[in-house]
Amino acid sequence: MTFASIAIIGLGLQGGSIGLAVREFLPEARTTGFDLSPEHRARAAERGLVDKVCATVSEAVREADLVIFCVPPGAMGIAAEQVRGALPATALVSDVGSSKQAIAKALGEALPDHVVIPAHPVAGTENSGPDAGFAHLFRNRWCIVTPPAKVDMVRLSQLVGFWEALGANVEIMTPEHHDLVLAVTSHLPHLIAYTIVGTASDLEDVTQSEVIKYSAGGFRDFTRIAASDPTMWRDVFLSNKDAVLTMLQRFTEDLTALQRAIRVGDGEQLFDTFARTRAIRRSIIEEGQDDARPDFGRGDHEGR
Amino acid sequence: MTFASIAIIGLGLQGGSIGLAVREFLPEARTTGFDLSPEHRARAAERGLVDKVCATVSEAVREADLVIFCVPPGAMGIAAEQVRGALPATALVSDVGSSKQAIAKALGEALPDHVVIPAHPVAGTENSGPDAGFAHLFRNRWCIVTPPAKVDMVRLSQLVGFWEALGANVEIMTPEHHDLVLAVTSHLPHLIAYTIVGTASDLEDVTQSEVIKYSAGGFRDFTRIAASDPTMWRDVFLSNKDAVLTMLQRFTEDLTALQRAIRVGDGEQLFDTFARTRAIRRSIIEEGQDDARPDFGRGDHEGR
Repeated sequence: MTFASIAIIGLGLQGGSIGLAVREFLPEARTTGFDLSPEHRARAAERGLVDKVCATVSEAVREADLVIFCVPPGAMGIAAEQVRGALPATALVSDVGSSKQAIAKALGEALPDHVVIPAHPVAGTENSGPDAGFAHLFRNRWCIVTPPAKVDMVRLSQLVGFWEALGANVEIMTPEHHDLVLAVTSHLPHLIAYTIVGTASDLEDVTQSEVIKYSAGGFRDFTRIAASDPTMWRDVFLSNKDAVLTMLQRFTEDLTALQRAIRVGDGEQLFDTFARTRAIRRSIIEEGQDDARPDFGRGDHEGR
Repeated sequence: MTFASIAIIGLGLQGGSIGLAVREFLPEARTTGFDLSPEHRARAAERGLVDKVCATVSEAVREADLVIFCVPPGAMGIAAEQVRGALPATALVSDVGSSKQAIAKALGEALPDHVVIPAHPVAGTENSGPDAGFAHLFRNRWCIVTPPAKVDMVRLSQLVGFWEALGANVEIMTPEHHDLVLAVTSHLPHLIAYTIVGTASDLEDVTQSEVIKYSAGGFRDFTRIAASDPTMWRDVFLSNKDAVLTMLQRFTEDLTALQRAIRVGDGEQLFDTFARTRAIRRSIIEEGQDDARPDFGRGDHEGR
């Protein structure tokens, strides 16, 4: 029992990838899509991200039995309000947002008579917009589904089956726990990456061209995630404020301890901290969540 | 006028890569090598990292006209003292260390009668040891040469020519400026990456297996550089203390400002900060210092 008609609201990296993945892995399902930006709609139609790009959001959802909101977290509520009236009463409502408590609340308030099961595919690249999506984005990535406490198990398993069909591994979690886990594995890393890239651009003694030139020493790894969509990330931090601030506090304490070790010349503490971290990298590679080749297999090591 | 006999002290990622690069790009030069670890010497001989792996450091340098110290920053002085007596008086002394003021001082004190011109190839991977090296490590990477104020221009141009032959682009800089530039482009990123990976491993509410599982949300990018050699990085922070602490202070100020913006819900400040950082990434890619493909062209996007 799968979905026959899927509406995708927002045709950026996530929405576009879902559309392309449905075409490849669920070819019998029909997809419609909408994006606020006329330019994005035109480009989405050119790339064939969905079977039909609609001129209005109402038209996109009119026959849907699944609607997936792929807009920034702060726009979820407004987007959901705009489909009310046009969305069939039996349609399942879901999303791909990076925070879950705030989005579950916003979708539930906007569509109180619908079944809402939020989800978050933990997959992405630094690119955004209608040119960024690709069908295999979700392959071997986790998708976290965060159903409400009382959930229709049939609808839940339908949504799980959908994500599995797209190549993802699905995990069920409470929205609260999701927001804590993602605060450390995703939100804090992005905040720190944005910060250090900002710090490096503002120095007086070191020019921006020097920062760019010598970035291969480590800095360039941070610039990738700091190139992510600013609107989406603004919304992530505002919608997952408490968990992010908690994790940030822990990080700052640990950084202060290392700062003190450097100041007093405590080599032992530095070594002990640095020696602990290799095991985590090894596990991430073993679980297929990163590339084992040095430098992730970046192009400049082809000659190895 | 190039080098006929090159001694490489320390046969890890850097030393091994130099040996392999010399074989490929300067095939007429003879290379000798030494490593403190008998296991590393055996493996270096198996891989043919140098023409001859020597059983003692004196033997390795006896006929050298260039000796390159490829040991952790804190071991440079001791390693240099051990070649005194055996190293020909005319041999040029250099290194590949990541901090330059402290190393220049240590090498100069250990070998007061030799010409010392320190250098730092800004190239590396997260791997270390005799299996990590490869001939193309330096290709299209920068090598910063930091000569003393009064330098023999002939020797300097010999060293520059050596690194250019290995595929590097060479830049001349004072040791002071080098240490400041690298503090921001390399040392601070490593310190932050080590910290966040440590923070994530110590949480009570989020398990280590969850951190590993959902690392594709951003965290995994940090684990790569946090898997770097702990001995070397301990020495980098101890030997470039002042510049690292200065940059860390700037970073902490900027992070505190973003923390406050999150707490008070200042979306505009967050957006403005996040929107500034894409340009830097673009420049890094344009200058060939990183891979333009999404996710650096990691293996899991082959299907795009």
